Amino acid sequence: MVQIHPRIERLQPYAAGTRPDPGIAAIKLNQNESPYPVSPKVEQAIRSSGAELLREYPDSGCGRLRAALSELHGVPAGAILCGNGSSELITLLYKSFLCENDTVAVPDPTFGLYATAAALVGVKIVSVPTDDDFRLEPGKLAEPSPQAIIIANPNAPTGLYVEAEQIERLLNDFRGLVVVDEAYIDFVPEGTSVIGLTKRYSNLIVLRTFSKAYGLSGARIGYAVADERLIAAMAKGRETFSVNAVAQLAAEAALTDPAYTSLTVERINRTHEAFRAALTDTGWRAWPSFTNFLLATPPSDGPTAQEIYQRLLDRHIYVRYFDAPRLSDKLRISIGTDTEMKTLLEALSDAGA
Amino acid sequence: MVQIHPRIERLQPYAAGTRPDPGIAAIKLNQNESPYPVSPKVEQAIRSSGAELLREYPDSGCGRLRAALSELHGVPAGAILCGNGSSELITLLYKSFLCENDTVAVPDPTFGLYATAAALVGVKIVSVPTDDDFRLEPGKLAEPSPQAIIIANPNAPTGLYVEAEQIERLLNDFRGLVVVDEAYIDFVPEGTSVIGLTKRYSNLIVLRTFSKAYGLSGARIGYAVADERLIAAMAKGRETFSVNAVAQLAAEAALTDPAYTSLTVERINRTHEAFRAALTDTGWRAWPSFTNFLLATPPSDGPTAQEIYQRLLDRHIYVRYFDAPRLSDKLRISIGTDTEMKTLLEALSDAGA
Repeated sequence: MVQIHPRIERLQPYAAGTRPDPGIAAIKLNQNESPYPVSPKVEQAIRSSGAELLREYPDSGCGRLRAALSELHGVPAGAILCGNGSSELITLLYKSFLCENDTVAVPDPTFGLYATAAALVGVKIVSVPTDDDFRLEPGKLAEPSPQAIIIANPNAPTGLYVEAEQIERLLNDFRGLVVVDEAYIDFVPEGTSVIGLTKRYSNLIVLRTFSKAYGLSGARIGYAVADERLIAAMAKGRETFSVNAVAQLAAEAALTDPAYTSLTVERINRTHEAFRAALTDTGWRAWPSFTNFLLATPPSDGPTAQEIYQRLLDRHIYVRYFDAPRLSDKLRISIGTDTEMKTLLEALSDAGA
Repeated sequence: MVQIHPRIERLQPYAAGTRPDPGIAAIKLNQNESPYPVSPKVEQAIRSSGAELLREYPDSGCGRLRAALSELHGVPAGAILCGNGSSELITLLYKSFLCENDTVAVPDPTFGLYATAAALVGVKIVSVPTDDDFRLEPGKLAEPSPQAIIIANPNAPTGLYVEAEQIERLLNDFRGLVVVDEAYIDFVPEGTSVIGLTKRYSNLIVLRTFSKAYGLSGARIGYAVADERLIAAMAKGRETFSVNAVAQLAAEAALTDPAYTSLTVERINRTHEAFRAALTDTGWRAWPSFTNFLLATPPSDGPTAQEIYQRLLDRHIYVRYFDAPRLSDKLRISIGTDTEMKTLLEALSDAGA
């Protein structure tokens, strides 16, 4: 009988948010997708040459897209690597820079995929608790003397962020690899991106994705920005053609329409604020969040978070429930359209929450 | 300074065929792509909902596509796993079933990615030479007592295939993992697929791709068929969202149009035959091939294969040259349209080949 690798046998796979069955009219607030359609420029690009692009192998190096990103961020194209979502890049950076039993420090709680991907390559995760309000002091992540540190900034599922200056202090003290996952950075009103620091710190990798503010979750495209030496190593080890041709086209087209992206972000941030106010008015506690989601605890005199999760699901409203310490009394709710959030509030009221 | 993993440092990356610069009118016969557009049903599907699909995360399990493949092959959906091309599945099966320093036997020559992917996970490749005519006796692959065997059937870059019966004999004798990569099987006139054998041999994995006969190289989608226990292990270890939403849609639409796929295959096979005859008429030796490419040696009294490769490149005609033992005196030429092959023959004549 073929043996299954012990790492796979032991693995707790990453639990993604559930998808509604096809054909069900659902409100999907569990994967932090954009509730708005992709930019008309993306739509136009797909319509005019999407199918034609499927015939030939994609450009393995994503040359045009990297050229556009190079201009956007003011870094050389050689300092950028595109991947099949930032998820592929997380696995890839483990493979490229860490050996079996090396340790990676991450805040607790944080994005679950860091631990899943680590388990698959035999890298050990050291979880460093955030404070009672889920705030993180980046310097604390260096205390266990790990080989690498990953900071989601803003963090998920909490939504809090740390300032670029705090990350720079960490970079001055810590010589191992520092990965800053900026998946949600576009939702932070004042830019705290550390992409610019990749020019000065050769141990910094910044991850970005087109899945959130650009509304391209289905395309599977993200990128890493880092010193060219690190990018070259990752490029060597990656799957040659992992970014599909239509995804490249869509991302390129999205970058030509920054006004649309800004508008989407503004709309989501406005809805976020209104929803947060309405939710706290009904007795919920909502943590500060600078993303397209929020984490909130229902009033203690009503149904539990898990009960509410289930009651919403019965009405085809999908939010995220984490059966994990410090999170199991809370729900993570993505910000949808105003109409969707209104329906959610009504459903919460009906559910006695 | 961040250390790069020694496996990455040592790695010879997989060398894919070169892509013409954008905007250059080139004839591309170096990556075994289909010269024909995707099925009108794929085109229609992309046009009507491609962009819309980009907004939400794809179905991680590729449920609809697997249901269609289950029907096509008469195996349970649980015996099928979709991936980002068969390339992702090759890496994944190494990770799932092999440990560091385990050995994998492959014929020599064969598809180079098997060795690249192995090097990345620390698995050792044992190359078993094919005979003087590149023929392979599958049983020979068991002789070095490897943990696993991979057979591309038909093989690349040679184009030869082995009968299902020969693979079944191997399966009766060898208890390790047997992987049969059927990327080009649709071009073999009489079906020799061993997908049916996955129901009886729990150590067999069959790989398929939509990149060749279906003409969807740019979509990045392939699949594995195997015993459900093996598929479940691979599913656990894979990247959650590696198959993009448009790729799933395109593959589903392609499967609804088998007549178009058959027609494409017939046209390519017909062009293949005519081109082979014309090429051998000019003194080349072409190996038997049951794929959308052929391997051929130029006449010994003219320019070398490498010289011809370069002269064709100067005319924006891309074929494949392998700087490897037994291959460096040959070219691998993908089968394009009749017009493209006519242009190639003229260019070869002009190049003195």
